[in-house]
Amino acid sequence: MSTAPAGLPFLKGHGTENDFVILPDPDGALAPTPAAVARLCDRRAGVGGDGLLRVVRSDALPEGRTLADEATWFMDYRNADGSVAEMCGNGVRVFARFLWHAGLTDDPMVAVGTRAGVRWARREADGGVTVGMGRAGLPSGREATATVTVGERHWPALHVDMGNPHAVAFVEDLAHAGPLLDAPGVAPAAAYPHGTNVEFVVDRGPAHVALRVHERGSGETRSCGTGACAVMVAAARRDGRDPVADGRDATYTVDVPGGRLVITERADGEVEMTGPAVIVAEGSLDPSWLDPAELRATALG
Amino acid sequence: MSTAPAGLPFLKGHGTENDFVILPDPDGALAPTPAAVARLCDRRAGVGGDGLLRVVRSDALPEGRTLADEATWFMDYRNADGSVAEMCGNGVRVFARFLWHAGLTDDPMVAVGTRAGVRWARREADGGVTVGMGRAGLPSGREATATVTVGERHWPALHVDMGNPHAVAFVEDLAHAGPLLDAPGVAPAAAYPHGTNVEFVVDRGPAHVALRVHERGSGETRSCGTGACAVMVAAARRDGRDPVADGRDATYTVDVPGGRLVITERADGEVEMTGPAVIVAEGSLDPSWLDPAELRATALG
Repeated sequence: MSTAPAGLPFLKGHGTENDFVILPDPDGALAPTPAAVARLCDRRAGVGGDGLLRVVRSDALPEGRTLADEATWFMDYRNADGSVAEMCGNGVRVFARFLWHAGLTDDPMVAVGTRAGVRWARREADGGVTVGMGRAGLPSGREATATVTVGERHWPALHVDMGNPHAVAFVEDLAHAGPLLDAPGVAPAAAYPHGTNVEFVVDRGPAHVALRVHERGSGETRSCGTGACAVMVAAARRDGRDPVADGRDATYTVDVPGGRLVITERADGEVEMTGPAVIVAEGSLDPSWLDPAELRATALG
Repeated sequence: MSTAPAGLPFLKGHGTENDFVILPDPDGALAPTPAAVARLCDRRAGVGGDGLLRVVRSDALPEGRTLADEATWFMDYRNADGSVAEMCGNGVRVFARFLWHAGLTDDPMVAVGTRAGVRWARREADGGVTVGMGRAGLPSGREATATVTVGERHWPALHVDMGNPHAVAFVEDLAHAGPLLDAPGVAPAAAYPHGTNVEFVVDRGPAHVALRVHERGSGETRSCGTGACAVMVAAARRDGRDPVADGRDATYTVDVPGGRLVITERADGEVEMTGPAVIVAEGSLDPSWLDPAELRATALG
């Protein structure tokens, strides 16, 4: 019905309802400012998303060049407010889905450059995508545990580090965390000098848990990849399982508000997360809404 | 980078941050179920919007056929939950913008069929769109006023009917309405047997007001077209202006959280609302996310 648009191409996708605007930019020709990222991610005045995934060849970016031998593609991830972020596990799944969708690679195993180093993603036969999330850290001594408080209730929590900090609390009922409008209290504060993400967990069955998560700086979200991994590791330890010590993988199903993840801690310590990665739509940004020149690196001189 | 997609075409647009998924369907070939509409409007798992605007020729729809002589195009408006709605003032602006954008008409004045009858929209030289919103009703007697309550505060409110009910309260400070997580109290309840939208209003200057709005059934929103018109009429009466009695138009600037509207009550009683109407992006829905057959009327047989 309408003539072909001349705006910048974009896609919208999500992984367990952690959603992204995808901006293909193979040659690094774009230089989205924080303001432009915030406009794109604005849910009412823009396209809308939890963040932006810019798809750039690693050798076209200063921060990707040293990774170019290992990873052809670099995931330039930005938060919805325009700030730069290192990594996003749900984002890597959606990023890899885009590479296959766009025909940029046929390899079912792809390496993705990120500011936290190279991550791998594998396409599964059932349509899911598995991402390597690194090893979990379990601090010892006084940092090993904490107390999480919401209103009148409090629970003991296990400290799990997945590159970012988590306080994992097993609760009787996810509703006990309440509406979670504010960040839960975590004590002692010294255990988390830079604040923490907080997960509330219930059992759903053998090796099957469900969680709610309050993300540091974002509030309650539909999904948090590192949080789900931290929960899996905390549940395994509670259940007396330690894959590295046992020499045997442990696998848990982890339900998040936005969907289902399957997470394995391998005998070599690596945590793998498998979940959906969906392309919802693709198109182009209307040039009268966002002048492509505003995003071009050359326009910034 | 990617091959041409084969999914259903869509657009995303907004008017003062009241945002819509636009589904061009000139021949009425689609029959979106409530579940499909809710999926499209889901902000994280779908495209995202406050509602869906399906663009259909009036003569291709049972509910549009009687309007076809007056309005070639019919706005089939659905709320984000999939329910059918009669009218949406911000939606008519965006609907008209789409007709011009897609080249479906060159006429700067277009008639739009809706379930509430035919509305007109006019393209302004500055890029804004003006929509005829009908006449305001001011109930008399015991229904003329009410008391609006938030927490410990309460204010007198004027009852204005714009096809739907409004309680308009002038306040000292928009922050006094608080976070507005719940519907404000309105008494006596008998004044609004079907509930009401509530507007909080402050003065910004001569014939210039700003508002916050709590929409019945939706909570606080970024914009409400009928609410802005109700506020304009209430402010005019407060200022001793009655265009029909005076034989002279009254025009107010009305700032809503999502932008600026200019509203005129004409000497003939008709209320006109002028505001922005923006197409953000256009593209196609990924067929692996939403099978086009799911939306086709024929598939429902």
